Amino acid sequence: MKQYVYSFGKTTDGNGKMKEVLGGKGAGLADMAIAGMPVPPGFTVVTEVCNLYFNNNKKVPAEVEKQMKEKLKVLENEIGQKLGDPKNPLLLSVRSGARVSMPGMMNTILNLGLNDVTTEGLAAKTGNPRFAYDCYRRFIQMFGEVAFHVDMEKFDHIFDTQKKKAKAKLDTDLSADDLKTIVAEYKKLFKKETGQDFPQDPMEQLTRSRDAVFESFFTPKAIYYRKMNKLPDDMGTATNIQAMVFGNMGDTSGTGVGFTRDPATGEKVFYGEFLMNAQGEDVVAGIRTPQPIAQLQQILPNAYDELVEITTRLENHYRDMQDFEFTVQEGTLYMLQTRNGKRTGPAAVRVAVEMCEEGMITKEEAVMRVAPDQLDQLLHPLLEKSALKNLTHIGNGLAASPGAAVGKVAFDSERAVHFSASQPVILVRKETSPDDIHGMDVSRGIVTMVGGLTSHAAVVARGMGKPCIVGASSLKVDEKAHRLTVALNGKTVTVKEGDWLSIDGTTGNVYLGQASTVDPDTKSGHLARFMEWVDESRGGFNVRTNAETPRDAKKAREFGAEGIGLCRTEHMFFEEGRVEHVQAMILADDEKTRRKALAKLLPMQRKDFEQLFNVMAGFPVVIRTLDPPLHEFLPKREHLMVDIVRLPHADIKEKREMAKAYKTEVKELKKLLPMLLHRVEELHEFNPMLGHRGCRLGITYPEITEMQARAIFEAAVKVHLKGKTVIPEVMIPLVGNVKELENQKALVVRVAEEVLAKAGLTGKLKYMVGTMIEIPRAALTAEQIALEAEFFSFGTNDLTQTTLGISRDDYVKFSKHYEDLKIFTGDPFAVLDQGGVGRLIEQAVKLGREARPDLEVGICGEHGGEPSSVAFCYRVGMDYVSCSPYRVPIARLAAAQAAIQKKNSGIAVSATV
Amino acid sequence: MKQYVYSFGKTTDGNGKMKEVLGGKGAGLADMAIAGMPVPPGFTVVTEVCNLYFNNNKKVPAEVEKQMKEKLKVLENEIGQKLGDPKNPLLLSVRSGARVSMPGMMNTILNLGLNDVTTEGLAAKTGNPRFAYDCYRRFIQMFGEVAFHVDMEKFDHIFDTQKKKAKAKLDTDLSADDLKTIVAEYKKLFKKETGQDFPQDPMEQLTRSRDAVFESFFTPKAIYYRKMNKLPDDMGTATNIQAMVFGNMGDTSGTGVGFTRDPATGEKVFYGEFLMNAQGEDVVAGIRTPQPIAQLQQILPNAYDELVEITTRLENHYRDMQDFEFTVQEGTLYMLQTRNGKRTGPAAVRVAVEMCEEGMITKEEAVMRVAPDQLDQLLHPLLEKSALKNLTHIGNGLAASPGAAVGKVAFDSERAVHFSASQPVILVRKETSPDDIHGMDVSRGIVTMVGGLTSHAAVVARGMGKPCIVGASSLKVDEKAHRLTVALNGKTVTVKEGDWLSIDGTTGNVYLGQASTVDPDTKSGHLARFMEWVDESRGGFNVRTNAETPRDAKKAREFGAEGIGLCRTEHMFFEEGRVEHVQAMILADDEKTRRKALAKLLPMQRKDFEQLFNVMAGFPVVIRTLDPPLHEFLPKREHLMVDIVRLPHADIKEKREMAKAYKTEVKELKKLLPMLLHRVEELHEFNPMLGHRGCRLGITYPEITEMQARAIFEAAVKVHLKGKTVIPEVMIPLVGNVKELENQKALVVRVAEEVLAKAGLTGKLKYMVGTMIEIPRAALTAEQIALEAEFFSFGTNDLTQTTLGISRDDYVKFSKHYEDLKIFTGDPFAVLDQGGVGRLIEQAVKLGREARPDLEVGICGEHGGEPSSVAFCYRVGMDYVSCSPYRVPIARLAAAQAAIQKKNSGIAVSATV
Repeated sequence: MKQYVYSFGKTTDGNGKMKEVLGGKGAGLADMAIAGMPVPPGFTVVTEVCNLYFNNNKKVPAEVEKQMKEKLKVLENEIGQKLGDPKNPLLLSVRSGARVSMPGMMNTILNLGLNDVTTEGLAAKTGNPRFAYDCYRRFIQMFGEVAFHVDMEKFDHIFDTQKKKAKAKLDTDLSADDLKTIVAEYKKLFKKETGQDFPQDPMEQLTRSRDAVFESFFTPKAIYYRKMNKLPDDMGTATNIQAMVFGNMGDTSGTGVGFTRDPATGEKVFYGEFLMNAQGEDVVAGIRTPQPIAQLQQILPNAYDELVEITTRLENHYRDMQDFEFTVQEGTLYMLQTRNGKRTGPAAVRVAVEMCEEGMITKEEAVMRVAPDQLDQLLHPLLEKSALKNLTHIGNGLAASPGAAVGKVAFDSERAVHFSASQPVILVRKETSPDDIHGMDVSRGIVTMVGGLTSHAAVVARGMGKPCIVGASSLKVDEKAHRLTVALNGKTVTVKEGDWLSIDGTTGNVYLGQASTVDPDTKSGHLARFMEWVDESRGGFNVRTNAETPRDAKKAREFGAEGIGLCRTEHMFFEEGRVEHVQAMILADDEKTRRKALAKLLPMQRKDFEQLFNVMAGFPVVIRTLDPPLHEFLPKREHLMVDIVRLPHADIKEKREMAKAYKTEVKELKKLLPMLLHRVEELHEFNPMLGHRGCRLGITYPEITEMQARAIFEAAVKVHLKGKTVIPEVMIPLVGNVKELENQKALVVRVAEEVLAKAGLTGKLKYMVGTMIEIPRAALTAEQIALEAEFFSFGTNDLTQTTLGISRDDYVKFSKHYEDLKIFTGDPFAVLDQGGVGRLIEQAVKLGREARPDLEVGICGEHGGEPSSVAFCYRVGMDYVSCSPYRVPIARLAAAQAAIQKKNSGIAVSATV
Repeated sequence: MKQYVYSFGKTTDGNGKMKEVLGGKGAGLADMAIAGMPVPPGFTVVTEVCNLYFNNNKKVPAEVEKQMKEKLKVLENEIGQKLGDPKNPLLLSVRSGARVSMPGMMNTILNLGLNDVTTEGLAAKTGNPRFAYDCYRRFIQMFGEVAFHVDMEKFDHIFDTQKKKAKAKLDTDLSADDLKTIVAEYKKLFKKETGQDFPQDPMEQLTRSRDAVFESFFTPKAIYYRKMNKLPDDMGTATNIQAMVFGNMGDTSGTGVGFTRDPATGEKVFYGEFLMNAQGEDVVAGIRTPQPIAQLQQILPNAYDELVEITTRLENHYRDMQDFEFTVQEGTLYMLQTRNGKRTGPAAVRVAVEMCEEGMITKEEAVMRVAPDQLDQLLHPLLEKSALKNLTHIGNGLAASPGAAVGKVAFDSERAVHFSASQPVILVRKETSPDDIHGMDVSRGIVTMVGGLTSHAAVVARGMGKPCIVGASSLKVDEKAHRLTVALNGKTVTVKEGDWLSIDGTTGNVYLGQASTVDPDTKSGHLARFMEWVDESRGGFNVRTNAETPRDAKKAREFGAEGIGLCRTEHMFFEEGRVEHVQAMILADDEKTRRKALAKLLPMQRKDFEQLFNVMAGFPVVIRTLDPPLHEFLPKREHLMVDIVRLPHADIKEKREMAKAYKTEVKELKKLLPMLLHRVEELHEFNPMLGHRGCRLGITYPEITEMQARAIFEAAVKVHLKGKTVIPEVMIPLVGNVKELENQKALVVRVAEEVLAKAGLTGKLKYMVGTMIEIPRAALTAEQIALEAEFFSFGTNDLTQTTLGISRDDYVKFSKHYEDLKIFTGDPFAVLDQGGVGRLIEQAVKLGREARPDLEVGICGEHGGEPSSVAFCYRVGMDYVSCSPYRVPIARLAAAQAAIQKKNSGIAVSATV
């Protein structure tokens, strides 16, 4: 018969490696018991039983009940007490313990086994009726709440009423009689609320409590926790049934929790807190303030020393920082739990580095110990905590791009540019569009009212490495009136243009007022050492960055980027002083006029590329030719339609504003607006994502590609002649058919050879022409594409959109339902859909390399900075990933972990989150 | 050494099977020569030389020149004349002849070999100087035009001037001296235009003429012809050099063309025309009116009888209708060409049927003889030709949906509905949107000013089987003013609402005025017999139809549809009296209100399905749950924005119009418009194609799927209880992940079982639940999808959009460039992109069948009615195709041909277009 219940104590059936079966807590208890540590004995009902319970109409199989009874007998024999024994009753705790720790999510029941008879027995045996009735009232309340969902506040009301009556300040001031009265009232309440008497049979108490633990696995908060942490719902939870030890037996008793190192900073100090004369839930409830653990040394020096000794052993045993629970009963220490401790990003790095330096773990293990996303906390400026007290918290949105920013509010990009000359700016918009690029560029941070984690604002801000909060829907932004309002405690707070805002893109919090920020140090100390080890493990797998500006490129180099994987030339088109020429090009009626406008852009683009090549000297720079549909550079169709209707009714002030917006004179408006609308209508698209963009532009307007190629190679020649190594890789976007690439490649190569020949550099300046794989057809026909392409770069943003048939901008409309139904593992625009898009990528890499064995392959979509996606890219044999500057260290770490995992394949060494 | 030149005549090197090498004409001449028919001897320069010429800087390899000289020698020996011989000169014709006939596209040169000396020799030899100089002047003109691009009109001017001078009425009235004068003038003109003397060297004449034939392969009209007929540019053309025979040697000479059967009707009559005393180009030039061929029997009975005898032999030899050219020289018949004749759709069917009945070909061969698209000409009403004379041709657009329609113009759908109560309507719009469905539904035909062959109007009209012309850009439609204007011969013609229009969707022509139409007979005669044979060949491969209305379903049954492959339920939502409830559902704030609106739609949908099941009794009916984004049912965002700005400035008349448009009262507008805009903004999508639609709607609003499932199964029960066989197949659209299908299938099955149980029909009414495969991810994970799906139906419209990353509606923006560059073979939305989308489909069928061997697989995209795509579907093992009613016979034929081809695989039996 299968074993469903495992003992721990003098007889221990399981061991620490059986986390899958016993859950984290059960495995830890077994381990400590085997090591001879003072663990109250007990037994663990395995995780599988939780699934059996739910798959079997909420009934536990008879075999499990049978095994529980056997193991209870073992426990009773070891401890010399019997459950329900009137004289010498065994009391139990019942606690959950999933495979992966879900702290605070599930239920616990203490003091099980007490009833009207055994409580008297306990009082007589201990000579401490106050203690006995304190335990009983605790049990009735916990059992009532957890197993019967009786409202906690109703118990609290009875308790507080009695405290008042007894004029007790602290719980510990209550007498045994007070507690007896409370127990009587509790039982009445229980009957009233549940329609039945409080169960006196300890076995009924036990099975009900066990099932209540199972039930707590599917409370909304537990489901949500798993969703957040990407844990499966079928992992189940084990149940640990353990002999009670009592921290509430008087002044030599107490209970506490601790860490072997500081979980916030990682510093190697003994860290924790405790309460004397209390049970575990008192620490959590926060009625009494716990004492720092160091003070235990004064109060109970022996117990303290033993605790330090045991937890040090545990840390050495598990080779990781431990998070433990303990109880001291009348001077004797008992260990109730140990597990690898959760920690902040900075702590994770410091603990890993120091443990390695202490010789406890290897460098590779250290590298595996930090979850890549945790690094994010080390890279961005933070709001200084102390400063927040003086600010008003006015809203919370999605934490779209981490870091803190403080500045004065601007409600449109024009004002942002204007303000930014003299002061820091926070751009607040209903939503952003490509028109806002320059406004975003000059701002310290961005807040939008609508949009999701993959909206325009979020994507661009992450790309820029600027703090950003999106979907802060409580902020009612009125862009026209240049203000926002928030309903706050029944009042409406108005924020005007120029008011100070402080935002935290790591948490999504928005504050009214001016906080101060602290900058992280990334170049020395633990982080620097850690990243060195990361790079040692990474082997040949490279990390590049997505960047257009020299500033971003520099930042990325500081963060360790080994080249540019994506330079989106259109970002350069939106800049002040350029968009006019872009518009002139678009409005041109013939090629000649178009070429004239392009000629104006040529020197500007050449300068851009020159700066990038300079910063990235010695590293490859992938430059993508123009990608977005041209209408993005013109005013919006619906705005033009409205303004045409408005114009005849507008007063002179409005007209002036309109003229300013359209960069024209008032008297030109009447002619200009219909003309603009006409062209905008011509360019209007039903699905711009699938429209006239990417290489389709270059094919219809070859002169655009030509200008860009000329700018690239003229810049390359200039930097090369300064003695620096330039490695341009020209990337043609949105190719779906090899003939498209043939067409554009021929054009680029022709211009490149012309420019190089003129400089006498023919054959001396190496370059490549390749393509983005972002259309399923390209992936499906990769063996054809690879005959022309010298490199592939997977544009997984678009590839996800087309492969899934979901527009990134519109996904938010139904994403909530999709998340609830777990249709994808995570947001497919953040976490690569390996089961769908991943199949296509794997197939394309294979086909591509078959046709061209030295094909360079990388990824430049948002996924290039997401750890699980980076690991995927490594596994399918890509040469590099490319991501926004602030994600570079994260990608480096993810790549290193993937490499180590491959090397040790089979040996699971997973990071502790 | 490779043979580049083949003789025909007494010695014939080639034969009729060598079309690839000799071209169609060369192969035919070889065949006739072998059969001993009177063919003037000559030789053929093979097609490959044309490619060599263009790949070799427009020079023919020396080896070819050498072989030509050798074959010329053979010819001279056979005929006893020498090229350039002053006494007995050989004259030659030089004619093109590609593998596939390109009639009229390329150049011909006759009478080659004449110069000042040989003309005199010819005159002396024939004793007919008039004839000799007639030949010489013809040669100079043709050579000048073809090889040196001298303007034809300049030659004509000289010729006409001389005719006037000589007071000649007909060309044949000119004397030898007149012709000598003309020759002199022609030579002057040649020198003036080309800067060189007219070449006197016959070999130079010959090589230049041969190269001119090659050059004519790449004239714009020839390129266009190949593009239209999907012929490759590298197929090249052969050149046939042949001894001249002369139809211009007097009253017993003549020349003509003919067919063995009537190419317009297919009737078995000897058909053609001829000119006495003329050369071939005179027939084409149209200066003299040719006589019907029957009259030749009177004039030259021997030649006529021989011609009938020879062409009958040729028809029997080629087992197909022949198109031939002949010349009679002084009573002797010569055959110059024979080939399978081009014919109309009706002729193709009749010829095939009659030849089979004559025992000349088998049924299967008959089926292979008609190109599927040719059937289209037999299915739709036609404009009566005689009636067109009285109408004004006001424009021409793309022939988007075939057939003729006559009606009064309506410029919006409201008016169309209004007019249609009493008279036929032609709906004319700038472009149509889903709002126009009811207007299109009541109209006889549709014309739009913008949009391509795959625009909304085109797709919907084809679906409805209504004549439609799109992109008729010369019609300037002013929807507001309810009129259109056309610039016609410098004048502006205005067409007002209510004016009569006649349109021909087969040609794209738009006429002002009321023509009459003729209806085709499809149920008897040749077509009916032909379709019987088609169905015999088709085996188990089925053809279903895409239809929503009982009318369409009936039409499709008449055309042989075996079920419905796609019923788009949203089309039913747009109907008058329903869209209000749909809007109420969309505007509902909560599920309860939504369900109330849905409850109103339920009986209507049930009735729809009941009617469909009745019409399709015994056949499967695939019903797709709601697919389009909900905003399609609401007013357009930009219109609302404009109307909100307009409202305060509008006078009462405008307000009333607005109120009418929004189906409300004037006083409600102020409140309603912002409310509507608010909801429309909430629903607004950047890329609706990739947005909140398909199963995503059913997942977020399960009550919609529930209502539809209820309507389907309640209707099924009703029809079943009437004793008819109902086979419902519920299709979930836009699935990309099996979990989506799981969710929707569970819902449909639950409702179905409820309804069936209530009717006591559990297990007695078979139904299936399946999915559309229209998202690449679904195809990529087909083995997972197939675990839930009982059938796959490839939605190739959307699958093409997502796989290619091209929006069908936006493709028109760059399609011209793509067609010119031949990036796809044909419009990928009309002709399935087998190299890309096809790979995905093939893979999905394989994966799906591996997981579920009895998986039913079909296609319901537009491609389901396109012959080459139908053949593809057959090849990859689909069970059926589904297409619009009027495409059903075409799909049946395409399927039959694919089946026959598979059966005879290897034996190429291609249809004659």
